[in-house]
Amino acid sequence: MTYCVAMNLASGMLFASDSRTNAGVDHVSIFRKMQFFSQPGERLLVLLSAGNLATTQSVINLLRQRAKFAQEATTILNTPSMYDTACLVGATLREVALRDGPALNQSNIEVGCSFILGGQIKGEAPRLFNIYPQGNFIESSIDTPYFQIGEAKYGKPIIDRVINFNSPVIDAAKCALISFDSTMNSNLSVGLPIDLLLYAKDDFGPGIHKRITEHDPYFQQLHQGWGQALREAFFAMPPLDLNT
Amino acid sequence: MTYCVAMNLASGMLFASDSRTNAGVDHVSIFRKMQFFSQPGERLLVLLSAGNLATTQSVINLLRQRAKFAQEATTILNTPSMYDTACLVGATLREVALRDGPALNQSNIEVGCSFILGGQIKGEAPRLFNIYPQGNFIESSIDTPYFQIGEAKYGKPIIDRVINFNSPVIDAAKCALISFDSTMNSNLSVGLPIDLLLYAKDDFGPGIHKRITEHDPYFQQLHQGWGQALREAFFAMPPLDLNT
Repeated sequence: MTYCVAMNLASGMLFASDSRTNAGVDHVSIFRKMQFFSQPGERLLVLLSAGNLATTQSVINLLRQRAKFAQEATTILNTPSMYDTACLVGATLREVALRDGPALNQSNIEVGCSFILGGQIKGEAPRLFNIYPQGNFIESSIDTPYFQIGEAKYGKPIIDRVINFNSPVIDAAKCALISFDSTMNSNLSVGLPIDLLLYAKDDFGPGIHKRITEHDPYFQQLHQGWGQALREAFFAMPPLDLNT
Repeated sequence: MTYCVAMNLASGMLFASDSRTNAGVDHVSIFRKMQFFSQPGERLLVLLSAGNLATTQSVINLLRQRAKFAQEATTILNTPSMYDTACLVGATLREVALRDGPALNQSNIEVGCSFILGGQIKGEAPRLFNIYPQGNFIESSIDTPYFQIGEAKYGKPIIDRVINFNSPVIDAAKCALISFDSTMNSNLSVGLPIDLLLYAKDDFGPGIHKRITEHDPYFQQLHQGWGQALREAFFAMPPLDLNT
């Protein structure tokens, strides 16, 4: 399994992904699920992936090598808009699913995967898309400024409680890490390290990338402090009155 | 969808279930998912259900009418142990699935359902079982004193953070209501009213049953207070240091 979350806020974007993949509980590995495509000064694109690892790796390989060798007129490094970029990722996903799907279906293995695509291309505001296994996609909005893929449910309540479109990106980073901590406490299939990317609107640079390992002092502080804060908040709430 | 949770703690038991059922988002109804079977002074059994409503209602009808008309030698009101009671519920579930499954399968409708069975029969400690759609089951333990069925993930982190086997039942009730509040904030398919049952160990009475509606002042207080407490705890945590 996987957990990824991305937020498109007024002041910038936040991306976070875990690194655990597993084929059964006895085959667990670390793979990075956050990929960057950049043209400094012109675009920064971030792709988060969940689902069949062979499929997501194939999609990313095709996107990269077609850009590198200019094998197609339109590549991920020259799409004119984020919308066209989402179309390109969706089409590449369909291509891989068509190629690998029949063989996987014969073994009852799921070929599907999901992507979150976010970033900014010069001339546009930052934009964020959730790309479904079928290759179609939706875009975030002011009302719903974030997307999650993978094991999303455990970590959703805290995002819903504290984040809105006007939240600073630095708060979004803290919230994402707490959301990951809640998820990892409840589900072994999501694991460290966490890749974190903070992108300031109209920066068009590489953003600030941090890799959070188990030895990261801030994450340890958050892990212990948040559990403690929750327990204190819980015991401070009044008890149920059994007499009413 | 549905959300039910039950806890078997040192001092007693806590049961909670929502009341929303839906066949598509345009067909939403209120059905109680908590059923009691009691012989005052000898046993109190509580059954929480999730899944196909026709199946769960059939199982409960068969259990009730066979006890009422003594149609079988062993009924839910005279099983000698909680283990035998879980076997009886599992067998009745298999019987209904066998009867209704083929017709439902033809329409690609899921016949399955899950139960949480808990309670106490004189001569035994309180016991709690999670009964799977296949009719087999597992029992809770000191290490894992609670079970959830239905839409369990949103509300799991708070239980994992604050409840253990030695928690008082009154704390379990507060935690269950916060867990429901988190779930209902994130998922429309879980809804009020919430049925709550507190049972003190070795009581063998009806327990304390409360039905929490949207007008319940305690639940309103919890809903607002918990959201506020979480936001305060969140903003009190230190921010990510971007310079390390």
